[in-house]
Amino acid sequence: MKGLVFHGPGQSSWQEVPDPGIKDPTDAIVRVDTVTICGTDLHILKGDVPEVRPGTVLGHEAVGEIVEVGSDVRTVRPGDRVLVSCITACGRCRYCREGAYGQCLGGGGWILGHLIDGTQAEYVRVPYADLSVHPLPSTLAAKDAVLLADIFPTSYEVGVVNGCVRPGDTVAVVGAGPIGLAAIATARLFSPERIVAVDLAPARLEAARRLGADAVADAREAPEQLVADLTDGLGADVVIEAVGVPESFELCTRMVRPGGHVANVGVHGKPATLHLEDLWIKNVTITTGLVDTHSTPTLLRMAAAGRLPTSSLVTHTFPLDDMEEAYDIFSRAADTGALKVVLGEPPHDVVAVPAA
Amino acid sequence: MKGLVFHGPGQSSWQEVPDPGIKDPTDAIVRVDTVTICGTDLHILKGDVPEVRPGTVLGHEAVGEIVEVGSDVRTVRPGDRVLVSCITACGRCRYCREGAYGQCLGGGGWILGHLIDGTQAEYVRVPYADLSVHPLPSTLAAKDAVLLADIFPTSYEVGVVNGCVRPGDTVAVVGAGPIGLAAIATARLFSPERIVAVDLAPARLEAARRLGADAVADAREAPEQLVADLTDGLGADVVIEAVGVPESFELCTRMVRPGGHVANVGVHGKPATLHLEDLWIKNVTITTGLVDTHSTPTLLRMAAAGRLPTSSLVTHTFPLDDMEEAYDIFSRAADTGALKVVLGEPPHDVVAVPAA
Amino acid sequence: MKGLVFHGPGQSSWQEVPDPGIKDPTDAIVRVDTVTICGTDLHILKGDVPEVRPGTVLGHEAVGEIVEVGSDVRTVRPGDRVLVSCITACGRCRYCREGAYGQCLGGGGWILGHLIDGTQAEYVRVPYADLSVHPLPSTLAAKDAVLLADIFPTSYEVGVVNGCVRPGDTVAVVGAGPIGLAAIATARLFSPERIVAVDLAPARLEAARRLGADAVADAREAPEQLVADLTDGLGADVVIEAVGVPESFELCTRMVRPGGHVANVGVHGKPATLHLEDLWIKNVTITTGLVDTHSTPTLLRMAAAGRLPTSSLVTHTFPLDDMEEAYDIFSRAADTGALKVVLGEPPHDVVAVPAA
Amino acid sequence: MKGLVFHGPGQSSWQEVPDPGIKDPTDAIVRVDTVTICGTDLHILKGDVPEVRPGTVLGHEAVGEIVEVGSDVRTVRPGDRVLVSCITACGRCRYCREGAYGQCLGGGGWILGHLIDGTQAEYVRVPYADLSVHPLPSTLAAKDAVLLADIFPTSYEVGVVNGCVRPGDTVAVVGAGPIGLAAIATARLFSPERIVAVDLAPARLEAARRLGADAVADAREAPEQLVADLTDGLGADVVIEAVGVPESFELCTRMVRPGGHVANVGVHGKPATLHLEDLWIKNVTITTGLVDTHSTPTLLRMAAAGRLPTSSLVTHTFPLDDMEEAYDIFSRAADTGALKVVLGEPPHDVVAVPAA
Repeated sequence: MKGLVFHGPGQSSWQEVPDPGIKDPTDAIVRVDTVTICGTDLHILKGDVPEVRPGTVLGHEAVGEIVEVGSDVRTVRPGDRVLVSCITACGRCRYCREGAYGQCLGGGGWILGHLIDGTQAEYVRVPYADLSVHPLPSTLAAKDAVLLADIFPTSYEVGVVNGCVRPGDTVAVVGAGPIGLAAIATARLFSPERIVAVDLAPARLEAARRLGADAVADAREAPEQLVADLTDGLGADVVIEAVGVPESFELCTRMVRPGGHVANVGVHGKPATLHLEDLWIKNVTITTGLVDTHSTPTLLRMAAAGRLPTSSLVTHTFPLDDMEEAYDIFSRAADTGALKVVLGEPPHDVVAVPAA
Repeated sequence: MKGLVFHGPGQSSWQEVPDPGIKDPTDAIVRVDTVTICGTDLHILKGDVPEVRPGTVLGHEAVGEIVEVGSDVRTVRPGDRVLVSCITACGRCRYCREGAYGQCLGGGGWILGHLIDGTQAEYVRVPYADLSVHPLPSTLAAKDAVLLADIFPTSYEVGVVNGCVRPGDTVAVVGAGPIGLAAIATARLFSPERIVAVDLAPARLEAARRLGADAVADAREAPEQLVADLTDGLGADVVIEAVGVPESFELCTRMVRPGGHVANVGVHGKPATLHLEDLWIKNVTITTGLVDTHSTPTLLRMAAAGRLPTSSLVTHTFPLDDMEEAYDIFSRAADTGALKVVLGEPPHDVVAVPAA
Repeated sequence: MKGLVFHGPGQSSWQEVPDPGIKDPTDAIVRVDTVTICGTDLHILKGDVPEVRPGTVLGHEAVGEIVEVGSDVRTVRPGDRVLVSCITACGRCRYCREGAYGQCLGGGGWILGHLIDGTQAEYVRVPYADLSVHPLPSTLAAKDAVLLADIFPTSYEVGVVNGCVRPGDTVAVVGAGPIGLAAIATARLFSPERIVAVDLAPARLEAARRLGADAVADAREAPEQLVADLTDGLGADVVIEAVGVPESFELCTRMVRPGGHVANVGVHGKPATLHLEDLWIKNVTITTGLVDTHSTPTLLRMAAAGRLPTSSLVTHTFPLDDMEEAYDIFSRAADTGALKVVLGEPPHDVVAVPAA
Repeated sequence: MKGLVFHGPGQSSWQEVPDPGIKDPTDAIVRVDTVTICGTDLHILKGDVPEVRPGTVLGHEAVGEIVEVGSDVRTVRPGDRVLVSCITACGRCRYCREGAYGQCLGGGGWILGHLIDGTQAEYVRVPYADLSVHPLPSTLAAKDAVLLADIFPTSYEVGVVNGCVRPGDTVAVVGAGPIGLAAIATARLFSPERIVAVDLAPARLEAARRLGADAVADAREAPEQLVADLTDGLGADVVIEAVGVPESFELCTRMVRPGGHVANVGVHGKPATLHLEDLWIKNVTITTGLVDTHSTPTLLRMAAAGRLPTSSLVTHTFPLDDMEEAYDIFSRAADTGALKVVLGEPPHDVVAVPAA
């Protein structure tokens, strides 16, 4: 089969690789119909994630069809159309018992396209299939569903739920890339009074407005002042960090009101400065986290009911064989305007799903 | 009357000052029977809290008797024996309505011995008395009660409750000064499996054991390793910061398990480094906060029932007139072994209260 | 002034009564611009609420203007346009400190039009004004605001928040009168997957659809079967009782899934049967409650932002002097189609507020 | 092997039955070392649980050693000493993913000694062994551990955790049989101010005092008055029902304060009357539930640390072959004073474990 193979920093190719087979009785083999590319995949290509060994097939998001299952798989069978989640869960360890699948101690967590071959291929082996793939409602288009493999549960769980968004809140989302946009879309599920989006790129702020931001601010133009003005000087109830650099995290801690929440979603490579000399007295809660995907079944039902604007994040679609071009477009997002790119074969089964 | 007056950095004296009187109809005047000195008072004396103006009477903790009330005070009257809380609450602003009295927007919060004259005097004016003093159970000794003005609710609310201590948890408390010791004592209310205390001073670690720590560690000898060894390598469920310097906060973030809580209680004067490159993926919750004292009525009942080892933190007692000597002893804690010093006039009504 | 005076079961009149004056320094006098009638007022007229003494002015909901305040009122002053809440709060008792104002032990709770003269009059005295009236955003029409005095916070707090509605849930609302309709409207703030409304009257089910119900069921035609069919046989995540008779409560307990919530909002006059022989094993949570109105400030902001379909419940408007006719129309709701009736003078300042 | 076989209402015998074997790859076979008898077993013998078919081996609590595992069991292996939980969990269904194992939709829940052969035998087959048995700390005596198979997690989860016991609370426990006593013991983990036990039998009230009740009341002598007297007339913060008859449940709803919790643990065979005419206005939360055993790993650690007075409930011990005599003693508890009876062979490995 074909797969996108990592060959070390800066090097990858869409090439022939061996077909995967069942290794453990809890495995499933999925024929990949639709995949997407994650910002994390770009980090891997840059060499920022050294535990990815050369030779690994990348990708941790897919929609496809089960073609084979191990003897202990009970909840899906060949022919089932499924979502392959970015998180694999053994279901038996302490963390899995609490639904904290992202922290799985039993060999799961984020492993696809990271520690084992991933989904950017024609077939993928998914360990612990019972808890790691999700049967798809027939009415849900693959283009929508594939965004529930990572980006939507990540934004929802790590941003919105950890941030405790409540009706009437003022929510600030720092970073209006795909994760920030999905945070805006899922924050709306809790009916905040207003959502303020912050970014450097006018095109992203425009996208933020489309997804439901009520106000937008250029990150260079004192967005904390805008938030203060909107909130009688108090600050935002919830601030969601969706960039992953120290400056944006520090901005978040300046925008939050006493008693408020800062929910970090961004993937950070460097430490930030925590201004405890200001924050110690402010009753602030700061959370971090890898997605657990415990919300995926709920989000799938909501997407199937037309209550999530998933595919409105998709700016480009490609056949699977155009993987290298898709990577190129996605990696030059500032030029190409790419938000999410979706790959799949032919023709793409997109049906209209109205935004919430 | 006599009071301890701040005269600028490094200067204070126990001297004659005018008696306070009712200014607003919600005020009460309290005759001070018992006071204590807080670490924050030492910070003020060093000049670390510039908003304290020279001429201010210090102190934000006291037990005494109501001698006069304004026309709008409804819940206490002259003759009542009360605890004067470190936090004053208007009861009408957004934060007070949520019980977040420490963040009061209506002129309350921490004001005694900070923005207005405080409790280290023979009399004190307490604004918004209905929500800012607490009637005392007759069975509760002043020496015990005065520790509920600040240190016990602070450790309990900002450390233990914010940290979400649960039965069976491993709790690490970094810093075994008075606040850390009160955190150990109140963490026990939730029956953790074990409490690990960390400090530099052997005498403080010994005190930690007396208050209920199950293990102790020298801060210089890799306490994170001890915690890891006790928890199958995972880390502590809850880590409570009770020092207030960057190094101790950073140690806390290394000791917490994925999914755990770091509750900062320490008063910080400098920023810390937040290692988001490690923490972004760990599902960690970090909280900060000034005490709200919403738990004070509950803690008073528990202390009266003998379920809090309050006065076991008291190492020295003095008559009120020995205020300057008490400050001296308290400020040289490393030499004197002082934990909490209590001042009051004669003879001190201490009755035996068994530890929980 | 004129007021609607209760003269014992079945008897009331819109008649001349003395103007109210300030009695306590925390009182405010409000000139009533807009009022509404509550189902509870009809219960009083029937004699179901014996603690209401003849001679009492009825009504516990109003919008008006402050004309006088006592010496201790701090947060409002003459000229302010305010909402008079159905709940009065002393702000000092144990329950008020927890935001449970409906359970006030200090002389508050539901007292207007119950234990003291109420709002269905030209003027009303409001005790504890600081915590019992709410300044109104200038953009909010009185017709919308008056529904936030009781019905909207009641449905939201006692139904939706107590019931723990979450994104993706199936919510059943039993009873599609004004309270049930407001529960439907406010349940939507948490983005349930679907809301099922149950009632006997086709007109009310039609109104339920308008307010956002996704499915409706006749209460006589096994609505529990419809809910089961929609939920793989499990039952609803949340069931809200908005009728107040044993049969409807018992229906709710048959419609809830294992692990779900039954939130009782209805005012009951008789006991119900609790089928513990079925329920003991089902992990069900049942809640009851009088509204606390802690959510009123939030709901006011959301209504001002056009995010609550408040006035869409208003079917009839009258001048204040037509109080008796308004009662007649409201009491014959089955014939007149009345949901909420609003009274106020001249001409009503209704501006268009789009539904959420 | 020998097992205790149910032969229909009123009939059972300790007799030879076939040894169990592995049926599914997730099964384990456990050699039973220690068992106990549950009140539910007596209900089965009376014919109150009609889904138990004649021929079934009873029992759902045991400590033993793994002797064989299916090919898909990963977390235990032959030779491991384990606790067999009363709840079996598939680990894959919606409820298991939420830790609500008692509501398992995948063939688990309470099945041992109910729908399949149970633990009162020399060997038992345990389905879904990975999530249904718990490895035992070597320091934990079997006599202590076996009480964690059902009674302790039931009282803790369904009584104490569902009831939201908090430090400083007044907790009333109605029923001082084994479940009520375990509720008293585990309520203490949250440091309530006082626990009031209610029962008819002086011996049980005496046992309640030993387990930590601060006050006791005869159920016939207006225990609600005692609770009212202790709580300024308000009622208990938390009331735990541990009997299972309508009268005791109704007593609980009279003892709870406004804003409090009633946690039903009792197994009910008949409906109760819910006095909604009084309760609708009181902000009361009522919970029911079968145990999920999600707390079992935590309770095991606490028992191993000597923080649970488990075996202090054990009044009688027998060799396994004396099963019929043990049933006789346990079923005549009023005469024999039996609380929990433990069976196991020879000699019983009881070590001293101090009470918490």
